[in-house]
Amino acid sequence: MKKQKQNKIAWNFSPRTDLAIEAREFAQQQKQNTEELDGVKVEIKNTDIYQITHVKILNETGSQTMGKPIGNYITIESELLKQNDITSHEQIMKTAAEHIAGLSKLSQKSTILVVGLGNWNITPDALGPKVIDKILVTRHLDGVLPEEIQKSVRSVAAISPGVMGITGIETVEIIQGVVEKLKPDLVIAIDALAARKFSRINSTIQMSDTGVAPGAGVGNKRMTLNEQTLGIPVIALGVPTVVDAATLINDTMDRMLEEMIAQTEQGSAFYEMLHNMDTDEKYKLIVDILNPYVGNMFVTPKEVDAVVERLANIIANAINIAIQPGITMEDINRFTY
Amino acid sequence: MKKQKQNKIAWNFSPRTDLAIEAREFAQQQKQNTEELDGVKVEIKNTDIYQITHVKILNETGSQTMGKPIGNYITIESELLKQNDITSHEQIMKTAAEHIAGLSKLSQKSTILVVGLGNWNITPDALGPKVIDKILVTRHLDGVLPEEIQKSVRSVAAISPGVMGITGIETVEIIQGVVEKLKPDLVIAIDALAARKFSRINSTIQMSDTGVAPGAGVGNKRMTLNEQTLGIPVIALGVPTVVDAATLINDTMDRMLEEMIAQTEQGSAFYEMLHNMDTDEKYKLIVDILNPYVGNMFVTPKEVDAVVERLANIIANAINIAIQPGITMEDINRFTY
Amino acid sequence: MKKQKQNKIAWNFSPRTDLAIEAREFAQQQKQNTEELDGVKVEIKNTDIYQITHVKILNETGSQTMGKPIGNYITIESELLKQNDITSHEQIMKTAAEHIAGLSKLSQKSTILVVGLGNWNITPDALGPKVIDKILVTRHLDGVLPEEIQKSVRSVAAISPGVMGITGIETVEIIQGVVEKLKPDLVIAIDALAARKFSRINSTIQMSDTGVAPGAGVGNKRMTLNEQTLGIPVIALGVPTVVDAATLINDTMDRMLEEMIAQTEQGSAFYEMLHNMDTDEKYKLIVDILNPYVGNMFVTPKEVDAVVERLANIIANAINIAIQPGITMEDINRFTY
Amino acid sequence: MKKQKQNKIAWNFSPRTDLAIEAREFAQQQKQNTEELDGVKVEIKNTDIYQITHVKILNETGSQTMGKPIGNYITIESELLKQNDITSHEQIMKTAAEHIAGLSKLSQKSTILVVGLGNWNITPDALGPKVIDKILVTRHLDGVLPEEIQKSVRSVAAISPGVMGITGIETVEIIQGVVEKLKPDLVIAIDALAARKFSRINSTIQMSDTGVAPGAGVGNKRMTLNEQTLGIPVIALGVPTVVDAATLINDTMDRMLEEMIAQTEQGSAFYEMLHNMDTDEKYKLIVDILNPYVGNMFVTPKEVDAVVERLANIIANAINIAIQPGITMEDINRFTY
Repeated sequence: MKKQKQNKIAWNFSPRTDLAIEAREFAQQQKQNTEELDGVKVEIKNTDIYQITHVKILNETGSQTMGKPIGNYITIESELLKQNDITSHEQIMKTAAEHIAGLSKLSQKSTILVVGLGNWNITPDALGPKVIDKILVTRHLDGVLPEEIQKSVRSVAAISPGVMGITGIETVEIIQGVVEKLKPDLVIAIDALAARKFSRINSTIQMSDTGVAPGAGVGNKRMTLNEQTLGIPVIALGVPTVVDAATLINDTMDRMLEEMIAQTEQGSAFYEMLHNMDTDEKYKLIVDILNPYVGNMFVTPKEVDAVVERLANIIANAINIAIQPGITMEDINRFTY
Repeated sequence: MKKQKQNKIAWNFSPRTDLAIEAREFAQQQKQNTEELDGVKVEIKNTDIYQITHVKILNETGSQTMGKPIGNYITIESELLKQNDITSHEQIMKTAAEHIAGLSKLSQKSTILVVGLGNWNITPDALGPKVIDKILVTRHLDGVLPEEIQKSVRSVAAISPGVMGITGIETVEIIQGVVEKLKPDLVIAIDALAARKFSRINSTIQMSDTGVAPGAGVGNKRMTLNEQTLGIPVIALGVPTVVDAATLINDTMDRMLEEMIAQTEQGSAFYEMLHNMDTDEKYKLIVDILNPYVGNMFVTPKEVDAVVERLANIIANAINIAIQPGITMEDINRFTY
Repeated sequence: MKKQKQNKIAWNFSPRTDLAIEAREFAQQQKQNTEELDGVKVEIKNTDIYQITHVKILNETGSQTMGKPIGNYITIESELLKQNDITSHEQIMKTAAEHIAGLSKLSQKSTILVVGLGNWNITPDALGPKVIDKILVTRHLDGVLPEEIQKSVRSVAAISPGVMGITGIETVEIIQGVVEKLKPDLVIAIDALAARKFSRINSTIQMSDTGVAPGAGVGNKRMTLNEQTLGIPVIALGVPTVVDAATLINDTMDRMLEEMIAQTEQGSAFYEMLHNMDTDEKYKLIVDILNPYVGNMFVTPKEVDAVVERLANIIANAINIAIQPGITMEDINRFTY
Repeated sequence: MKKQKQNKIAWNFSPRTDLAIEAREFAQQQKQNTEELDGVKVEIKNTDIYQITHVKILNETGSQTMGKPIGNYITIESELLKQNDITSHEQIMKTAAEHIAGLSKLSQKSTILVVGLGNWNITPDALGPKVIDKILVTRHLDGVLPEEIQKSVRSVAAISPGVMGITGIETVEIIQGVVEKLKPDLVIAIDALAARKFSRINSTIQMSDTGVAPGAGVGNKRMTLNEQTLGIPVIALGVPTVVDAATLINDTMDRMLEEMIAQTEQGSAFYEMLHNMDTDEKYKLIVDILNPYVGNMFVTPKEVDAVVERLANIIANAINIAIQPGITMEDINRFTY
């Protein structure tokens, strides 16, 4: 074991999560304390419907610890997202809309491009394309709408670029091409995410102003869509729909060992061993065992088809409300039909 | 009637068809003869599996008469396309591949962008996106494939841009943006088409070198994807999946009147009337009666869901064979998995 | 023409409609008056959201005239059904629930079997199966639910038997087999319907206590599910999702001829001819012209995929509210998840 | 640990697998040898396309050891099932057809009911319903087909009963009702299965003559469809499309511990501990940790949507060939359209 440690290659165990709240939990765990992390500020707010956690990564130290870019990560968590509870969903929509608007800093003249990442043929990865179908697009109505309405409507376009395995093109390249053509002021990108904890699947919405790497949820990470690559701000919205199989196995095993240590006489030897073990090596071992299938397997709940449809509706409406404050929800329903 | 004729606005009856073979039938009908049209050359070839019709529009005269741009229109017709007959489909695939290759004039170094037009949420309009899912894309494999294979593989990318009602963007704008980024040598565009005759639905493949106006099959025609708008040649492939309701009514009525004329004593008065009637006005009247629903209704066969899936497979494989002659069909199957 | 009339075979023109309100319109039209029909009683009620028409066929005379069995036919019509307008839909749900309850005459101990007719692979025919997915079934929870809840919950089962073309079995036979096994007190059957007027597509809900012939909407009529064939009362719910192509052509042509008569000097000869024409023969001629495709073609709106999903939700919830008055809509949402 | 062992409740670790070949591997592993098991006979045959394993459970001893009923389990394994390789698939179809025919013992007059188990809304569970869509049903054609063809065609019906969570009815009850009505001589039931090894997902077809418990693949096991419950023989066909998450974790952990034992100085203590550990307790611990989500999570490959479609085609054709030897594959294609 020691020998291995010395030869250790720089293979990082990142419990596969796209959620800042889980990255923070992991970072705190690593430090074996629950104090706050340097360069990271956290605010939590609870209502009877949801919990909102606002994680701010303030500087390079925070970014290093968290493994995520400097910026804001706002997470709404609610078990009610998994239920067919229209009243609660309307509350969550409105709250999400406020936070999207807060992150966006739009003027009345702003043009917005909404980008739905993911693959419409793989249910847990279809969130982005499904949201696009429900976005109130208006860019093509310029000159068509009555002037009075026109004044209070922002120009909105939307696109689902597909995934690199199907297009042969980096998603960022497609969006760069479209951005150069359309010259929007803001990109809002939606993607299905991977969470570490199964309990967060389909019950969590993350909004951030730091961009997004397409294919985070299902598949490999690619070039990031952000202000650097696109030249304009990028708001990212996501919902975790899958757990990475290797991460699930790793975490279950850890909790199992804890249970066993607590119960057995062999506990002490075990405990020592656990301490001597390197987290990265352990994870790498799991990945090796699962090979060559690991990149292709994911863990998802049975009802994923029905839930993704519902989540797409919630997120699309939150975006519609956030970027078209001049028109009511009823107008939106009338237009989007 | 005469009065109306004098006031006639320039509203053209075009029996809604995207097929050159049907445009030709209509033009001949109008001239009440079956001689060949000026500026149009036609070659027909029959096998026991399919009929191929090659319509060449040679000059401006032909283009005017046909209502279509100068160029080549090759149509494969086969009732077997509607059946689950693998052997015949392989024959049709190979023939289509030859004609696509013939229209394409590719060099070994050519880069190709395949564009799947249409809306993946409307079954009869989903042909384009479904083909894209089955195209062997290779552009992202540059540097990944073994050099030996790399040499014999053309760089291929593929995209489904969506429809303007969902994106708020003219499809041509999106493709222009992507073409500027990728600099391909050729675009191959696939779209669902509208036919005039129900018998041609799902049993006809049209290939042409004159470009394509997205949304021809379902919805309104938009800006055309062609060499003028994209700066590179455009091969268009399409299969008719719907009949326009107004066209179907118009044609059924015409055939009905013919029947009635043949049968009744009132035939002579009727016949005269038919002659005095203006085709355009008659069609406009139908459209008026069907309003405001006419743009939203289409006629399609019940089994359209199953058949579109099968046609997408045939067309995708025909394209794969045409643009990747260096690799066998088995290689393609292995890669596209 | 006269000769033909003498030889006339008993081929009935039924404008293909499953709606009692359209059958009534047609019967009145035939009589060329707008007085009420013998043996038929009609009540109409309007709100700002919907119009309800209650057609009662009182006796054999009414049944003959209408071409439908004696009983109640309640229709809710609302353009808002086509829009994504949650508030109006909740109103319509509640109203539909009241009428379903009124037709059902259930006791607290009643067991209900909900039957979703139609083919889940053909979008406009998938209404029934989609409703089934959203019905709150409870039969299997007997002994599982807390007793307090159990008391106020009726035993509900649900099934989508499929269509005869796929199963090779008359739907009635399957339901008879299941009814013999389960011994329910009531069947509620849901089916997609055919309307005569395109304006009624997706904007009309019909509820009746006279049973239903599966495959009315798309395909041929089959053996009827009713009290005679099943031995228990059958409530039928339906939404028209398609127009029969031959009916659409027939009706458009009629309106066109009217227009032409009004406009032309040949009007008088035409008018006479129209009078001499037999409605049945005219329709049969259309069917002949459309053959062999007529049974396979239907006219449907583009957005049918999205709308059927929404309508299934409205109807499933109306049924859930109607048959489970002991539990609130929130409970239902909680259970059905 | 010992204390626990004494208190051990009878909670059986069954690595969640529906494959007899995996049950046998597990049983041999438990015995820590590779000799053949008592009461179990195995024959293996290899071709360059597939491997066939015929497991015969001969008596009660074998049944106990394997945890499966006495009877025949024939498994075709081929990686080519995951590829779009038509030629190999035709080979596999024919081989599967032969074995289905062998297990079926049909006479010319036999009537067959094909039952597609599973939920058409959950992709990895939709195999059964998708097969049903492609079965050549003939029962309703009695009296319709030309007599010459009729003579060589067996009467075939097919049904997808749905899952208990949607119907509220035990699947066996529905099938009993239909069997009583139709009086078939044989039931062929198709279901998605769970495998233990991810490598077997979508690459294995199991055929058996021992019946099937619906919902094996996704969800809880229910009452079995077999000769006892239905009164007629039941042939079961299945393809594993998911791995149970708890089983995957358990197996990965076992292999990991083996690796760690081989590498560490603590190996001996570990090894001892592993020996002292009870398999059932370990698995139960995993299930406890994953609770309340364990019943709802499954592990599946990304491309499951595309592959299930293809597998449904292979299995449906294998059944069509097996039960309709009097007509050729071309006839079948012609009929099933």
